[in-house]
Amino acid sequence: MEGESTLVMVAVSESTINGYPHASISSKGAFEWTLNKIVRSNTSGFKLLFLHVQVPDEDGFEDMDSIFASPEDFKGMKNRDKIRGLHLLEYFVNRCHEIGVPCEAWTKKGDPKEIICHEVKRVQPDLLVVGCRGLGPFQRVFVGTVSEFCVKHAECPVVTIKRSAAETPQDPIDD
Amino acid sequence: MEGESTLVMVAVSESTINGYPHASISSKGAFEWTLNKIVRSNTSGFKLLFLHVQVPDEDGFEDMDSIFASPEDFKGMKNRDKIRGLHLLEYFVNRCHEIGVPCEAWTKKGDPKEIICHEVKRVQPDLLVVGCRGLGPFQRVFVGTVSEFCVKHAECPVVTIKRSAAETPQDPIDD
Repeated sequence: MEGESTLVMVAVSESTINGYPHASISSKGAFEWTLNKIVRSNTSGFKLLFLHVQVPDEDGFEDMDSIFASPEDFKGMKNRDKIRGLHLLEYFVNRCHEIGVPCEAWTKKGDPKEIICHEVKRVQPDLLVVGCRGLGPFQRVFVGTVSEFCVKHAECPVVTIKRSAAETPQDPIDD
Repeated sequence: MEGESTLVMVAVSESTINGYPHASISSKGAFEWTLNKIVRSNTSGFKLLFLHVQVPDEDGFEDMDSIFASPEDFKGMKNRDKIRGLHLLEYFVNRCHEIGVPCEAWTKKGDPKEIICHEVKRVQPDLLVVGCRGLGPFQRVFVGTVSEFCVKHAECPVVTIKRSAAETPQDPIDD
């Protein structure tokens, strides 16, 4: 009856409070909104694409207690990062599997806003869903929101899902 | 099985080229995108809300050939404007009726961007869909886009649907 599935890309990030493998509040909100308001019972009409962009740990703080004795140790470091990202995606893929919504998930490394727009260009989804913290202009200056950049630059329709007041942590920069 | 319908508000405007009752290219695009990519075959899961905001004809150019001899003549003028707006909405309501998607449609008078945000606050849809011309920054200065304002100020998730290159008229300000 229907043509090709609607491809919905959902950009997801890790929790700033609890770290990997926990998803950020705004990512979960974006995902739940997509399921409840768009996909609804029409699970065969949609395919969800989860993209997690990992920011390279430039200052290496996370590896301060590690000992590097051989090139393999560095490979191990990279793999550990990658595995953290995969565990984050596992949450979303598991939920989709339970509900019966087809999905794909992958990680990339780099500047999230640039990579998300690049992946939109490559994959050409019908809709990009990005959670956002819903910060005021003052807080936004210091954070530089990914969602605003995507709304302007992504080559597909974009919807940003703000956290509700009830979900917003004490420090709204946290997510 | 499912809870309440997803309420999708679609802001629609008249064609700048053909005038009433014809819908603008971007309005039609926003509507078709909503049907094809979001509603799909799940017609009972959604309710579309069409809002058309009429800009008051402040300079009265449209009524330059009319003769006003009594207060009733001015009432006639206002009614004619209103009827034009209703004929525009008829197109969208008819399409929904054919497909079997529940819908509601109404007109308001005023500044489109302000009224749309006000109606979002009042009706609380789950998603606002706004067509946009996809103008470059230079053209945008002289037009002042409704979609950008709504993305910033509407109190619900907003998606803007750009016209495709094939649909863009010779003068991109036209719609």
